[in-house]
Amino acid sequence: MEKPYVIGIDMGGTNTVFGVVDARGNLIECSSIKTAAHNDIKFYLNDLENGLKTIIEKVGGSDKIKGIGVGAPNGNYFTGSIDFAPNLPWKGKIPLAKLIEERVNIPVALTNDANAAAIGEMTYGVARGMKDFIVITLGTGVGSGIVVGGQLVYGHDGFAGELGHMIVRRNGRICGCGRQGCLETYTSATGVARTAKEYLSIRSDQSLLRSLDIDNITSKDVFDAAIQGDVMALEIFESTGQVLGEAFADFVTFSSPEAIVLFGGLTKAGDLLMNPIKHHMDRNLLNIYKDKTKLLFSQLKESDAAVLGASALGWEAK
Amino acid sequence: MEKPYVIGIDMGGTNTVFGVVDARGNLIECSSIKTAAHNDIKFYLNDLENGLKTIIEKVGGSDKIKGIGVGAPNGNYFTGSIDFAPNLPWKGKIPLAKLIEERVNIPVALTNDANAAAIGEMTYGVARGMKDFIVITLGTGVGSGIVVGGQLVYGHDGFAGELGHMIVRRNGRICGCGRQGCLETYTSATGVARTAKEYLSIRSDQSLLRSLDIDNITSKDVFDAAIQGDVMALEIFESTGQVLGEAFADFVTFSSPEAIVLFGGLTKAGDLLMNPIKHHMDRNLLNIYKDKTKLLFSQLKESDAAVLGASALGWEAK
Repeated sequence: MEKPYVIGIDMGGTNTVFGVVDARGNLIECSSIKTAAHNDIKFYLNDLENGLKTIIEKVGGSDKIKGIGVGAPNGNYFTGSIDFAPNLPWKGKIPLAKLIEERVNIPVALTNDANAAAIGEMTYGVARGMKDFIVITLGTGVGSGIVVGGQLVYGHDGFAGELGHMIVRRNGRICGCGRQGCLETYTSATGVARTAKEYLSIRSDQSLLRSLDIDNITSKDVFDAAIQGDVMALEIFESTGQVLGEAFADFVTFSSPEAIVLFGGLTKAGDLLMNPIKHHMDRNLLNIYKDKTKLLFSQLKESDAAVLGASALGWEAK
Repeated sequence: MEKPYVIGIDMGGTNTVFGVVDARGNLIECSSIKTAAHNDIKFYLNDLENGLKTIIEKVGGSDKIKGIGVGAPNGNYFTGSIDFAPNLPWKGKIPLAKLIEERVNIPVALTNDANAAAIGEMTYGVARGMKDFIVITLGTGVGSGIVVGGQLVYGHDGFAGELGHMIVRRNGRICGCGRQGCLETYTSATGVARTAKEYLSIRSDQSLLRSLDIDNITSKDVFDAAIQGDVMALEIFESTGQVLGEAFADFVTFSSPEAIVLFGGLTKAGDLLMNPIKHHMDRNLLNIYKDKTKLLFSQLKESDAAVLGASALGWEAK
């Protein structure tokens, strides 16, 4: 009998969520553990092994599981390892796929979280049936998963698709990567907060944001002020959308995707973000691309999408 | 018996070169006609038909020809048509693949000239055996052919890979495409001449270039001055290489290619161009990509490469 299930593991900096998924994309069993609580990878793996074994037993044992897919920050599909992930407690290269495989004796495939999101959108989300699209994740950082001709773009080394680190402003903002002007320094949730701090210090006009502690302003604060009509907050989204729209126009010259799908916390801003993106993308597109590439928000629940996306990779694990 | 040959057609703005190629990439018969001499496409097709039939007869008739591949400016692989090519005498959409097929009754596949160059490099050139690479053509304009996982990137509409129109300087030089700051306005042969004109008008230092007619300066003039050690000419190549190196670092974040292959007239500048490209690409690469992507010059004779590349497409024509 064909094994009817796969397991998806979404490893984030804070939590690791995992679940059993059937061939139709139903999340049958789901559980989670803390990621950051474990400074020694062995203790993390102990917890994960227990968690996985519990949900595996619930669906009838490991004979029912075809494979495990993992989405993890800086995960490399080719090597199955996590390489120098800045937001995880373990340093250097962690051969995570192999380590999990040894614990549960089920084949494991691994990729980075944005690629897992792209697989999730292609298998169960708004990109179903599309062969060419790009998923942009707008969270603490900016990630990307690029699909070309129905295949995820991994590049020769497994590290393709780091569009959050395209340089959009030469000599611009300092980035955590050590360079300047990366897309994510302007358009991640953190980037939006950074723009707010900049505006508040440089400008002198009134704003609801002035009542807040400037060092702890978040993108959520900017959103809350914007929906109350606060001019500065609206301009922050306009400026964020401009940087994204300009960058998207350049992405289109590369792979001419049918859609760019936006995913992650910042997309809660909805039209406040989408309208300026659309406007500035249109303005900057080469003529042959005009009015072709759709801009879409992911319709998947963020937590589910990551687990579902990772699980889809489980079908090809071997 | 398997049909042993294919035909490659390289349509340029001035000449159309075509030849019969065997499975090992030997150019068996070759001929050419003027492209621009014909304002009516019918007369062009008459000439092309005669030329093709002559070389087809020489190799034993059309039973020996598996297919025809065409590389043409603005050629679209999906539709087989040339759409609004600015450097050709015929306007609008020309269904060239179909028109040629009707004349010679052999299946025809068509793509743009930079994609044909990429197929040529993959089949017969420095990219043999590579699954992920980018060809950048540096000629009158800047074109690109992108290969991901062994497949050419066409995008959802057949127009992917217009990296010459990535915007590298916001509000920069006016481009023929109607926008500003495109890569090709700085780094094509024309772009190099433009930089020379700019430097000569803005600066006041001595240069061999000052003895030339400023309106007719070419990239060849800049090259000739640079190899004589002319400081301004050397700085023009330094600046051109900087723009290319910065852009290449961004291309790598997209598809993480094993190599970027440079092709076309401007590559005759050799190290004058390659050294600054390498320097600025290295400076701008994200850490995970450092020292991985090779920078290579095409080793194919430019005219042959285009015909060979187009011919390789002939094997899949149907």
